[in-house]
Amino acid sequence: MSAASLDALQKRLGHRFSDAGLLQRALTHRSFGADHNERLEFLGDAVLSLAVSSLLFERFAGSDEGDLTRIRAHLVREDSLYKLALGLGFPQVLRMSEGEARGGGAQRPSILADAMEAVIGASFIDGGYEAARELVKRILGEQIQGSASASEHWGKDAKTALQEWLQARRMSVPTYTITETRGQAHAQTFRVECAVPALSLASSGEGRSRRAAEQDAARRMLDDLIARDKS
Amino acid sequence: MSAASLDALQKRLGHRFSDAGLLQRALTHRSFGADHNERLEFLGDAVLSLAVSSLLFERFAGSDEGDLTRIRAHLVREDSLYKLALGLGFPQVLRMSEGEARGGGAQRPSILADAMEAVIGASFIDGGYEAARELVKRILGEQIQGSASASEHWGKDAKTALQEWLQARRMSVPTYTITETRGQAHAQTFRVECAVPALSLASSGEGRSRRAAEQDAARRMLDDLIARDKS
Repeated sequence: MSAASLDALQKRLGHRFSDAGLLQRALTHRSFGADHNERLEFLGDAVLSLAVSSLLFERFAGSDEGDLTRIRAHLVREDSLYKLALGLGFPQVLRMSEGEARGGGAQRPSILADAMEAVIGASFIDGGYEAARELVKRILGEQIQGSASASEHWGKDAKTALQEWLQARRMSVPTYTITETRGQAHAQTFRVECAVPALSLASSGEGRSRRAAEQDAARRMLDDLIARDKS
Repeated sequence: MSAASLDALQKRLGHRFSDAGLLQRALTHRSFGADHNERLEFLGDAVLSLAVSSLLFERFAGSDEGDLTRIRAHLVREDSLYKLALGLGFPQVLRMSEGEARGGGAQRPSILADAMEAVIGASFIDGGYEAARELVKRILGEQIQGSASASEHWGKDAKTALQEWLQARRMSVPTYTITETRGQAHAQTFRVECAVPALSLASSGEGRSRRAAEQDAARRMLDDLIARDKS
């Protein structure tokens, strides 16, 4: 790829490589030759995960581990990385074999997502963790901010969110039933079942109070419904 | 927990916390109260993964992504973290509810492994990525060095390793058959099947040469056999 296009890409990434060969390698598919991007992808996958985790940890000071894990999974999934790579113009600079290119490799989501991870890994080797984190923040920062409303909404009151979700689809409200209580009076644990009769679905939640157990069950039901919606 | 035991633990970890409250929180199970370790565990999981990835990346300069991923999975699995936590004396310093403690919570592998991740997450917040990486290197460095021989052995010659594995179990050698060739003469891709008749197993590998495809198939077969051995 030309020096000019490498230069333009580094501007878009917001990271100038001390070793431009690293960026070149990160953009090289294994079909092109031995000096390809798979080891950088291995590293970049972990760099991306930590950078996103740490940004989410700061941004969502009130969210629990389950919420954070869900948001992170959404941000780092192949489809999300593919779109970032497209936006950064990777198809124009990726190196691959002629056969792979003819087969549409430069547009393939898995190849582009892998290259995105490899570029993040390359920035980590080139400039250390802080440099890589800045790159991730630059390309994903808006999405991380944008994740706010949904998570904060669900995190605070899953029962309300679930009720709204069902009403928007003209289904009746869920029912909550205590199915178990454990422990002594001052330290009880409640188990609650949340049922959505219209869909023949039920979820189970636990908590130190009836209300906490209901919220837990509602959140699990919501997760389930949203996962079904997407598939 | 006492200031003396916190102090001793920091010596064993090789990281002195500027904020000892972070370490305290990392050692607090959710049954104990609101200020528990689950968010730190979320972060620590990602810190651990990157630190191990980066140490493996340097140590195994010749290993491919598949090898690195396998070794990493082995190092960060629950059982491995549980043993580290035991060795560091976590059962003596963990905070949890009386009920959880009576039920043997302080010895439970999942609780100890989670606390190990949370402590790594706490060191990351306290001292940044480099401090957390040093902690991981201190507690896992030997195992990372020890991973060497197996991976290097398999990485270099999976066919030999597979043959040795089978012979040690008095089984006959595997057979390799080309099942497909694609592409033009100068850029062919081979697909090879590796069969182990004694076990009625077969694996399939790909490569740019017959030999590379055989090595790939042999490595997949070995992975499969070793996974079966463990389960």
